[in-house]
Amino acid sequence: MQRERTRIMVGVNESTIKGYPHASISSRGAFEWILQKIVRSNTCGFKLIFLHVQVPDEDGFDDTDSIYASPDDFKSMERKGRARGLQLLEYFVTRCHEIGVSCEAWIKQGDPKEVICHEVKRVRPDFLVVGSRGLGPFQRVFVGTVSEFCVKHAECPVLTIKRSADEAPQDPVDD
Amino acid sequence: MQRERTRIMVGVNESTIKGYPHASISSRGAFEWILQKIVRSNTCGFKLIFLHVQVPDEDGFDDTDSIYASPDDFKSMERKGRARGLQLLEYFVTRCHEIGVSCEAWIKQGDPKEVICHEVKRVRPDFLVVGSRGLGPFQRVFVGTVSEFCVKHAECPVLTIKRSADEAPQDPVDD
Repeated sequence: MQRERTRIMVGVNESTIKGYPHASISSRGAFEWILQKIVRSNTCGFKLIFLHVQVPDEDGFDDTDSIYASPDDFKSMERKGRARGLQLLEYFVTRCHEIGVSCEAWIKQGDPKEVICHEVKRVRPDFLVVGSRGLGPFQRVFVGTVSEFCVKHAECPVLTIKRSADEAPQDPVDD
Repeated sequence: MQRERTRIMVGVNESTIKGYPHASISSRGAFEWILQKIVRSNTCGFKLIFLHVQVPDEDGFDDTDSIYASPDDFKSMERKGRARGLQLLEYFVTRCHEIGVSCEAWIKQGDPKEVICHEVKRVRPDFLVVGSRGLGPFQRVFVGTVSEFCVKHAECPVLTIKRSADEAPQDPVDD
């Protein structure tokens, strides 16, 4: 008897490292780990649901060379932001197709921790995977951690995958 | 190409409910969830490593009808405690053998959160699974939570599985 696929929601985000417009180290690490340690050869047993939550920039602008003077300017910014998110998700979706693992991808906007927990409620995955930078308590106070919040509040099992020490960039707050 | 089995360490404990000398609700829930959602039909792809950490009773006595007057009395108490832990592990090991999933089981003594993180370092599982009662912040202050500590400190990915609301006993601190 083979049941429905196990549906794994994976929170993914962009790298914060300048000049590195790709999936973050934590996101890619978590994704490859899932394939290797959970999915293994059983590619028909799982479905990956990628969720990227875009955070509006603190000042509302993400390109200081542009002038935002009309609502249309903001619309074009939003479009650019969406395009960026799509590029990020393309990486994961392409990899899944290569391997033959079923997947889907979503972009949402808002506070990542809140949106992820909300999407868990809506989509009802079997479990949620979140990467973590593995920050110490001092760094945590300033950057907060999405993973801690999700472990407490998401209404499904949560797998937290810390970035390994040898993958950490020079500034551990980067990812 | 088939790699080594994925080694999953599972923290298990006894029920705290009086007259119910078995695996806790969280432990059994987490175990069945792993079989159903992770192992699935791929029984050769995984190995489960059960770890039960016995907590010395706060007052050092676990049977008020007995007199503890000599070192030998304490020895017999320790033996009883060990026998209890074995019975608990027998449940999981028997289930694994029925299904054909490779497993091993360990009993250690001490503070569960510290011992689990120490064993992760020693045994190097691919990931750790801990059940959680899903207590609110008020309850958490008094009972502490092993799962929160492990998510922060264990040197491997950690999967936290909350007990579902319909499995919670009358007193949510029980398990």
